[in-house]
Amino acid sequence: MKSAVKRIGVLTSGGDAPGMNAAIRSVVRASMHMGIECLGIRRGFNGLITGDITSMDFVQTSGLIGRGGTVLYTARSDEFKTPEGRKKAANTCKLFGLDGIVGIGGDGTYRGLLEFSNQEGIAVVGVPGTIDNDIACTEYTIGYDTACNTALDAIDRLKDTMQSHERCSVVEVMGRHAGHLALYVGVACGATAVLIPEKEIDFQRDVVEPIRAARLAGRTHFMVIVAEGVGSSYDVAAQIKEYTGLDPRVTVLGHVQRGGSPSARDRMEATYMGYNAVELLAQGKTNRVVAMQKGAYVDYDINEALAMKKGIDERVYTVLRALIGAEEKHGI
Amino acid sequence: MKSAVKRIGVLTSGGDAPGMNAAIRSVVRASMHMGIECLGIRRGFNGLITGDITSMDFVQTSGLIGRGGTVLYTARSDEFKTPEGRKKAANTCKLFGLDGIVGIGGDGTYRGLLEFSNQEGIAVVGVPGTIDNDIACTEYTIGYDTACNTALDAIDRLKDTMQSHERCSVVEVMGRHAGHLALYVGVACGATAVLIPEKEIDFQRDVVEPIRAARLAGRTHFMVIVAEGVGSSYDVAAQIKEYTGLDPRVTVLGHVQRGGSPSARDRMEATYMGYNAVELLAQGKTNRVVAMQKGAYVDYDINEALAMKKGIDERVYTVLRALIGAEEKHGI
Amino acid sequence: MKSAVKRIGVLTSGGDAPGMNAAIRSVVRASMHMGIECLGIRRGFNGLITGDITSMDFVQTSGLIGRGGTVLYTARSDEFKTPEGRKKAANTCKLFGLDGIVGIGGDGTYRGLLEFSNQEGIAVVGVPGTIDNDIACTEYTIGYDTACNTALDAIDRLKDTMQSHERCSVVEVMGRHAGHLALYVGVACGATAVLIPEKEIDFQRDVVEPIRAARLAGRTHFMVIVAEGVGSSYDVAAQIKEYTGLDPRVTVLGHVQRGGSPSARDRMEATYMGYNAVELLAQGKTNRVVAMQKGAYVDYDINEALAMKKGIDERVYTVLRALIGAEEKHGI
Amino acid sequence: MKSAVKRIGVLTSGGDAPGMNAAIRSVVRASMHMGIECLGIRRGFNGLITGDITSMDFVQTSGLIGRGGTVLYTARSDEFKTPEGRKKAANTCKLFGLDGIVGIGGDGTYRGLLEFSNQEGIAVVGVPGTIDNDIACTEYTIGYDTACNTALDAIDRLKDTMQSHERCSVVEVMGRHAGHLALYVGVACGATAVLIPEKEIDFQRDVVEPIRAARLAGRTHFMVIVAEGVGSSYDVAAQIKEYTGLDPRVTVLGHVQRGGSPSARDRMEATYMGYNAVELLAQGKTNRVVAMQKGAYVDYDINEALAMKKGIDERVYTVLRALIGAEEKHGI
Repeated sequence: MKSAVKRIGVLTSGGDAPGMNAAIRSVVRASMHMGIECLGIRRGFNGLITGDITSMDFVQTSGLIGRGGTVLYTARSDEFKTPEGRKKAANTCKLFGLDGIVGIGGDGTYRGLLEFSNQEGIAVVGVPGTIDNDIACTEYTIGYDTACNTALDAIDRLKDTMQSHERCSVVEVMGRHAGHLALYVGVACGATAVLIPEKEIDFQRDVVEPIRAARLAGRTHFMVIVAEGVGSSYDVAAQIKEYTGLDPRVTVLGHVQRGGSPSARDRMEATYMGYNAVELLAQGKTNRVVAMQKGAYVDYDINEALAMKKGIDERVYTVLRALIGAEEKHGI
Repeated sequence: MKSAVKRIGVLTSGGDAPGMNAAIRSVVRASMHMGIECLGIRRGFNGLITGDITSMDFVQTSGLIGRGGTVLYTARSDEFKTPEGRKKAANTCKLFGLDGIVGIGGDGTYRGLLEFSNQEGIAVVGVPGTIDNDIACTEYTIGYDTACNTALDAIDRLKDTMQSHERCSVVEVMGRHAGHLALYVGVACGATAVLIPEKEIDFQRDVVEPIRAARLAGRTHFMVIVAEGVGSSYDVAAQIKEYTGLDPRVTVLGHVQRGGSPSARDRMEATYMGYNAVELLAQGKTNRVVAMQKGAYVDYDINEALAMKKGIDERVYTVLRALIGAEEKHGI
Repeated sequence: MKSAVKRIGVLTSGGDAPGMNAAIRSVVRASMHMGIECLGIRRGFNGLITGDITSMDFVQTSGLIGRGGTVLYTARSDEFKTPEGRKKAANTCKLFGLDGIVGIGGDGTYRGLLEFSNQEGIAVVGVPGTIDNDIACTEYTIGYDTACNTALDAIDRLKDTMQSHERCSVVEVMGRHAGHLALYVGVACGATAVLIPEKEIDFQRDVVEPIRAARLAGRTHFMVIVAEGVGSSYDVAAQIKEYTGLDPRVTVLGHVQRGGSPSARDRMEATYMGYNAVELLAQGKTNRVVAMQKGAYVDYDINEALAMKKGIDERVYTVLRALIGAEEKHGI
Repeated sequence: MKSAVKRIGVLTSGGDAPGMNAAIRSVVRASMHMGIECLGIRRGFNGLITGDITSMDFVQTSGLIGRGGTVLYTARSDEFKTPEGRKKAANTCKLFGLDGIVGIGGDGTYRGLLEFSNQEGIAVVGVPGTIDNDIACTEYTIGYDTACNTALDAIDRLKDTMQSHERCSVVEVMGRHAGHLALYVGVACGATAVLIPEKEIDFQRDVVEPIRAARLAGRTHFMVIVAEGVGSSYDVAAQIKEYTGLDPRVTVLGHVQRGGSPSARDRMEATYMGYNAVELLAQGKTNRVVAMQKGAYVDYDINEALAMKKGIDERVYTVLRALIGAEEKHGI
């Protein structure tokens, strides 16, 4: 069967995430395999506007699977949000003979792809890449696992020193609108409390009582995980001081969580999703995003994907609170 | 609701895996939460026979979530395979007042639990813990993610030196009967070839051709991943030498893959599965194993679980071969 | 030869550092080897005052060599700075039969040991343990190497994301009074600029010019390392913005730098220095600190040690600036 | 002052080591700083013979400081050992206008440089790069620290699983002629026994007695470190089985020890030594090697350096044995 596209471009857009390079490699190599030429578009949609395009081949993608960041760079593009900007981008596609685009990023990237496709008729497929795991249509986004492990490694180190000093630690992890990362890391580090934007916070119930319960059980150091979107972790620390008398130390993990060589899982997901994206274009499909649902790889229409909602796993919250003794004890 | 069990024991059996300690912590704390007392049984089923039992409380399980290995030790028990051995174990249960057992391990552990329950009427639940991910009823086993990352880290280091010397590397990863680990790691490291026991091997097609294809594409170093169960990795190296003229270096990763602080994912799965196991006992269920299917936590009857079959993901094999250029190029 | 002391205590004081546990293990085991009994004093000098003492043996120190933090806890003690506090501590020593103390920590710990010995006549030896490497009498302090590698690992991750976004990063590393850590890490990460409290800062010469030089040479991302003692890293970022137009991201690494399993070097130094400290007590010496000078293990009188001065390595500063192109080019 | 050389080449030779890239970066950038042009010679001395030369600039060396392996590749060259081979290499130097060579490697590299300089009158300086730390003239060789930490990380993982199974582990670390790495790692992991080629082995005294002493002290798992040069680690395991009844597991760490991103220390040493090497050439010196003695950077005549002898640190051996309880207890 002949591929529906002849030459495609791949770009990364929005915040970078570990595994984006692995996805780029997969897109380039899957293209080669399917008889499609693949070019690299640098600096996100800006590169489409300015013609910042580079060739990509087997050797250039050699070793890329394990490298953090994105060799294609990433950037936000206000100009691409205008019809004029997208017109320029379409001209670049004409100039370079691109009839398809794979965009790796988050919801903003998908919207950009969709508007571009709608206006200019170029085939587009999105690949979910963000450490926040906050894309509604997919259970997994590339970069999430590495970010969880990076945050966890930092928190394990903090535990060493908090334990030595018998202190309370407040750690702010990334997640402006989503608490997936905070909740996952909170369970994985055995946190005493986790605050996320999806849950209304009752400070006594969610922080003070768990600390008291842990203290009663004999614990002398406490870890409180705060998602960025909850507000200032310094305010959380001040409240802990007020209500418990503890003098917490605050750590803001920050951009460190975005970097590092991708984990095995992120490399696998990136490889699979990159391959699937090219396959969709080859099959003549457009306006799709690749995704994971119920542990399997699927794809959705971008419009449909953007309309989806994604909540947090309520049960994990229950398990977490049960295990640190904050829930009232009960039979089952 | 009142719990169906009053005092349970937790044990680890078979080969150890990172995350077993996190599972132990979860079982102990979930028990506390549900008003159940939980004791630690040391050295697997042997500890049930000899009464090698230890108390477990909140503080003893503090810090356990991040530690490799198993603080309860693990061992094989031939005596437990006999009715007499299981009789002794039942006496220990009577002595300590145990009316339920959570066993963390693999198929062998499940069989032991089942025979014990059938013979002595003690409630049992199994939790999947093995780095091999070779338990048929579940998509995921505790320890697998950490083992993948440990193997990958070693292979990334090997790549540095193989690249410097422009050599071929043959790496043997664990997996006597199952190639899941080898295949996952092979994709994640960008291997030129992966040999697993589930697939019949055609050396020319599976090793020699991929090396030639990669060489033609400009590559000067090659990584060949061999699952333990395939046979001697030295023989693989000898064949590579014979057919390609390359002089491969062999590395057997060995038991290193079993150790290390568990990854975020293993801690999460262990926490969840440990909690679910205790919940099943509390609900009066027995002869169950907790598992993951389609990305969700479920449970099965042990008999049913042992009868299941699990294949490798065929598509991953296709993707792998496509990306290293070993498959003939085609339209889609 | 008979040991001059019969029963000694070991304590950790001040900020904790990776390798303190390895030093504790070495002190306990060296004592056993030399026929001395060794007890653990918890929570620094406070434990001496309150009698917070624990026994330490072979098995209790098993596995300790690789654990971060300090199992003996650490704390500051205002009471020990008073003659009354030290009197109480001497009573504790009498009660437990302690005739020697090994104190692991920094200059404050040494001063405490000295005043205690002078007032109460108990033999004391200090072991240098701090991540800051800011103890004048020694080229190396336990914890420094691990902290350097921890900071470097975080900065390498930041580089991934800064590179992807072509940004400037300002990273604050620990060091209130000393820039050793910042300077070492700055060289090791290939920083564009390093600001430390020991050097007067000319912002144009030390930050703006290096950024311009690196930019001219083709670089699009920049790493600026700031030692804690220099002042607010947010101010540094604001100045960079003002003078260069770049919009830097600030990361404060914080207490993460204190934790983690000690590196090979820290374990080696801790093992050696702990052993040497016990040997000094066994030989009847007191008021000594073990140290490293010219790459060899030595010891000094505490008074002498506290009077020493330690500068930064000026040449490393020159090398750093030369390699990033900030120094005017010259023949030699 | 004007540099004595105008255009130099840098090469890596012999076994690769982490930090070689950091040294290359330093040589290139120090050259730029001193007004010297620097070219990269690929595949060791072979590249000099065949003219396998590449340009190196600021951007090409950007990011190099943290990468494992050597971007210039390394190889052995039999032809360079002949006068004819060196003649060809001299012609390459003439063709490219090279009047100086920096060679990064071990004793073999130094000998090659010396013979080349003697025969052809080209200025040469050697930089010590090998994970074995077996170069007599210097206390430190680039790559040693990273290799120690890599081996230690693997052994820590092994300890997790050995502890869970209460087993004995025999680990073979690199070092065909030198036991520095084995001894350092042995101390750092708290090994029960360490076997190195520099010490005559009395199996009862050095292995069996320490295991018995540790067993008596309550230990149930044992770590035996064997340097490659001692002989087969499988034989060591067989002897342990014969004399103690334990059934040890053998792990050969192998080439994994050569790879990985260099540690902070290796990057610092590589940066310093690379800079110093170029400075020597700029000052008109030749036939020198840079080195570390008594913790300071120095340089030697190559002839003198090759004639030096280097023993192991005898005291570390004593400390090691004392701490695991293998030495008879004594007063001091």
